Amino acid sequence: MEAIKTRRSIRKFRETPVPENLLKEVLNAARLAPSADNAQPWKIIVVRDEQMKQKVTQACNGQKFLVQAPIVLVVCGIPEDAFQTVGGYMSSHVIDASIALDHVTLAAHSLGLGTCWVAWFKEEKVKDILGIPEDVRVVALSPLGYPDESPERPSRKNLEELIAYDKYE
Amino acid sequence: MEAIKTRRSIRKFRETPVPENLLKEVLNAARLAPSADNAQPWKIIVVRDEQMKQKVTQACNGQKFLVQAPIVLVVCGIPEDAFQTVGGYMSSHVIDASIALDHVTLAAHSLGLGTCWVAWFKEEKVKDILGIPEDVRVVALSPLGYPDESPERPSRKNLEELIAYDKYE
Repeated sequence: MEAIKTRRSIRKFRETPVPENLLKEVLNAARLAPSADNAQPWKIIVVRDEQMKQKVTQACNGQKFLVQAPIVLVVCGIPEDAFQTVGGYMSSHVIDASIALDHVTLAAHSLGLGTCWVAWFKEEKVKDILGIPEDVRVVALSPLGYPDESPERPSRKNLEELIAYDKYE
Repeated sequence: MEAIKTRRSIRKFRETPVPENLLKEVLNAARLAPSADNAQPWKIIVVRDEQMKQKVTQACNGQKFLVQAPIVLVVCGIPEDAFQTVGGYMSSHVIDASIALDHVTLAAHSLGLGTCWVAWFKEEKVKDILGIPEDVRVVALSPLGYPDESPERPSRKNLEELIAYDKYE
């Protein structure tokens, strides 16, 4: 609960590398994430190579905080491994990949590391750069590193707008 | 991190009602969830009415643990309010609704409450029962209540299967 309340999206990072044991702990938090039918239809690519990070950043419309972070995580969903009929209408891979990355963001924060959900990217370019197969989808990216800023809590809608009781309102 | 490690999917609940202040705290955890462009394109319907719970349970193929829990949460994504081009190809409403529910599951656990991601449901029936508009999608459901079981940790893939470095492998 504390992590949920104090986590922020971090877009400025120190150069300090992420210790290997903390990276493992963060990735393990993703591993523990639940998924539909326990299919775990996702893969996270840990991008640390400087050239690769630069290319990936370009594929994210040049959002510079990505290349500034020591690590960029690229979260892929694997439709063919997923539960096919969430609600009778969709594959679970987007949900399952999202749960995994949410676990990462909260675990990272609890270890003093910063992350930021990145939705603004060109999937085809990211796939080309990292050799991601055609039938695998890129769901989101995130930088990972030590924060070099302490952003204020952003505004949110009121609970009344987000919650309804016993029927949709 | 502790919550991530010890959370389990709960499918057996005590009859004890969920105190109003804990419900609010859990819903507030969803409210604090990040979303693409901070659009917060989701709504959670808190189902407590017994008849409604029974109908919703039927729409979830009769998964009895739903009706046994004092509360069923129905998590909706609102495509028209969402960031339209995650990766250049999809609406963010599934991701954003998933982050919100993941926050709920972890916050609930940290408060001694149990939840369970439910993907096996008939969206059209759930929408009919709760009056959910045509252009709003049901992404997932979860029971919420005091656990009446302590499941073992389910198996997960090894990190080697889930993680790759600098390129997809």
